Amino acid sequence: MTADFRSLLSQRTRNMRGNAIREIFKVVSQPGMISLAGGIPAPQSFPIEDLYHINEAVLDRYGAAALQYDYTEGFLPFRESLADYLTAKNIQASADEIIVFNGSQSALDLLGKILITPGDAVALESPSYLGAITAFNAYEPKYVSIETDDDGIVPDALAETLERQSVKFIYLVATFQNPTGRTLSVERREQVAEIVKRYDALVIEDDPYSDLRYRGEAVPPFYTFAPENTIYVSTVSKVFAPGLRLGFCVGPALIRQWLRIAKQAADLHSNTYAQAQATVYISGGYLDRQLPKIIDLYRPRQEAMLEALDRSFPDSYRWIKPEGGMFIWVEGPDGIDAEELYWRAVERKVAFVPGKYFFLDEDDGLATMRLNFTMSDEATIQRAIDILGDVLRGSSAD
Amino acid sequence: MTADFRSLLSQRTRNMRGNAIREIFKVVSQPGMISLAGGIPAPQSFPIEDLYHINEAVLDRYGAAALQYDYTEGFLPFRESLADYLTAKNIQASADEIIVFNGSQSALDLLGKILITPGDAVALESPSYLGAITAFNAYEPKYVSIETDDDGIVPDALAETLERQSVKFIYLVATFQNPTGRTLSVERREQVAEIVKRYDALVIEDDPYSDLRYRGEAVPPFYTFAPENTIYVSTVSKVFAPGLRLGFCVGPALIRQWLRIAKQAADLHSNTYAQAQATVYISGGYLDRQLPKIIDLYRPRQEAMLEALDRSFPDSYRWIKPEGGMFIWVEGPDGIDAEELYWRAVERKVAFVPGKYFFLDEDDGLATMRLNFTMSDEATIQRAIDILGDVLRGSSAD
Repeated sequence: MTADFRSLLSQRTRNMRGNAIREIFKVVSQPGMISLAGGIPAPQSFPIEDLYHINEAVLDRYGAAALQYDYTEGFLPFRESLADYLTAKNIQASADEIIVFNGSQSALDLLGKILITPGDAVALESPSYLGAITAFNAYEPKYVSIETDDDGIVPDALAETLERQSVKFIYLVATFQNPTGRTLSVERREQVAEIVKRYDALVIEDDPYSDLRYRGEAVPPFYTFAPENTIYVSTVSKVFAPGLRLGFCVGPALIRQWLRIAKQAADLHSNTYAQAQATVYISGGYLDRQLPKIIDLYRPRQEAMLEALDRSFPDSYRWIKPEGGMFIWVEGPDGIDAEELYWRAVERKVAFVPGKYFFLDEDDGLATMRLNFTMSDEATIQRAIDILGDVLRGSSAD
Repeated sequence: MTADFRSLLSQRTRNMRGNAIREIFKVVSQPGMISLAGGIPAPQSFPIEDLYHINEAVLDRYGAAALQYDYTEGFLPFRESLADYLTAKNIQASADEIIVFNGSQSALDLLGKILITPGDAVALESPSYLGAITAFNAYEPKYVSIETDDDGIVPDALAETLERQSVKFIYLVATFQNPTGRTLSVERREQVAEIVKRYDALVIEDDPYSDLRYRGEAVPPFYTFAPENTIYVSTVSKVFAPGLRLGFCVGPALIRQWLRIAKQAADLHSNTYAQAQATVYISGGYLDRQLPKIIDLYRPRQEAMLEALDRSFPDSYRWIKPEGGMFIWVEGPDGIDAEELYWRAVERKVAFVPGKYFFLDEDDGLATMRLNFTMSDEATIQRAIDILGDVLRGSSAD
């Protein structure tokens, strides 16, 4: 008889489970499905032709060093190029103050590892990025939801929470948030910074989307308003290639010191070759040429979605028009069940993500939907939104 | 005043600390130092010229797919090529039964994560691989040391431990172990397999070195003797390039299921591009051409070290002659302090690793040393061993 190893699993595995969105995605891969469900870059955004040259430059310039074991904190030329990249975001950090991870997901995992003792409180925007929750879950925190509105997290709600209880950290996607596309306004950034300083609180700012700005002026990262209280986490996934799994962070020295130790134990270091590719991509001027192309690819897709929403969705539905990012967040009227809509939309070959998955409380966000606009062309997006509009009106008429 | 975030650290960080060998390595990078301390492949073993072709094949064949988000369990063509690779080791596993990780280090980390609740017992060979201990430490286990001799772990000692107490798993490097270079004999593999089956125990077999065989006949992995009780972990680090950070595992379905969930939370998936490189390397015949070159590079280096040891080390020192791997393990007579020898050797510009770092008990292994032979050429190795012999004789005469 085969041994049953269930008894060998650790207590924390009770807290771990598959990403609920995965179930949604099983349906999405059906033939003919138009998916507004994903949250991934368009393959057309990848600099494939450039990579032939980038690879040669990596081997010519770094040779065996690109294939060898390397420092846990990251390949030095990559950290140097990231220091330059961050300067343009008003973040002053030397190469020594940057740590590279296997995607920002791994940074979030290791932050959870070094900060969360089971039962500790972690504050999240409501709704929040599901991948972060999945990462933190393994360390068995309790979550505190902080209210948000169209301008992002509500400062008074945060202050009330911090007055009432201590939290290990506040996880924030301040710019073009996933799932809502919302951006914390500059005024709010100042208020939230003042609050976290007052309470000696720690913020994890996750910033994967800020380079994907289609109009309006750049907002400095939340980090720049409270650098001593913030761990800034970002990635090259949206501006180069997610398959390379390269994220990075800057932040307080004590946190970086423990992140380095935790990372050494978890994976020794990140892929040297990929870091060398990203070094050439950033410092060789490829990023500066590619980013406008990526924006020119996504901007009309977002505009097509916004136009179609105006045209096709009932007046009782509302959404904001984010200046960038990858998502439009739609809120339906009370009583709407977006998951029920989802299954009817799927029958008509259109998929999205019911927004309830991004809330901690099962009763929240039932009428919300996350619509991605990066993965389909304009005509397809418009057709999908028109179909969704039909489905919603069918529902309103029920 | 700057906030002091020490109070925010999790309880588990008390258990985490930097790899002690790192301190040793600071000295090693001094100019003119001959290092027998490392445990890393020679840069000359990397197929750099091949990589120009491999990179073109990756982009031609996989295009955007090599740069995109991918399955948590790994890039399917890579898992297919690994299935073929494993067949040659008598391991029958389909692509679906393989999970890819960011180096075997990440497999060990995630195994610790899904299996260890603080206080659980984990059984280790004594001495054992430090990187594994570092990975497991974060999950706060208690360790049980199992006695070893020249043929590897002692079956009776293991049986006594399993009779006395339950352990979550037994961590085993069965072939060309780090640090000792020892190989568990076939007879011992059969005995250990019988024991773990009898106690429904779980073995993590870490097998990074078995391809580095310089003479003698291949020994089937321990996994093949107890496949239902073993998680087999390996890596392409020693036969392709460690900088790519690609490890993998096969094992019981329940364990793989939880590893996949834990990996999704920890890093989403491993670098797709690197997996595509390794796919072409393995399935395109590059590995079959490169491995004999790697062996031809290391075999004479090992022979040079063994010859020099015979010639230069006092009779009171003993070592075995492993048929492969990267290390020679030397045991000095009682009373010798290998760390004290280390500092005197370093003055004469030769570095190694005092063996005590690989033991859990501070009093064990004081007279032992781990000597690496992959990183220097034959003449340099012989010179280093001659100098070490001088240093040892100085010590004997004290």
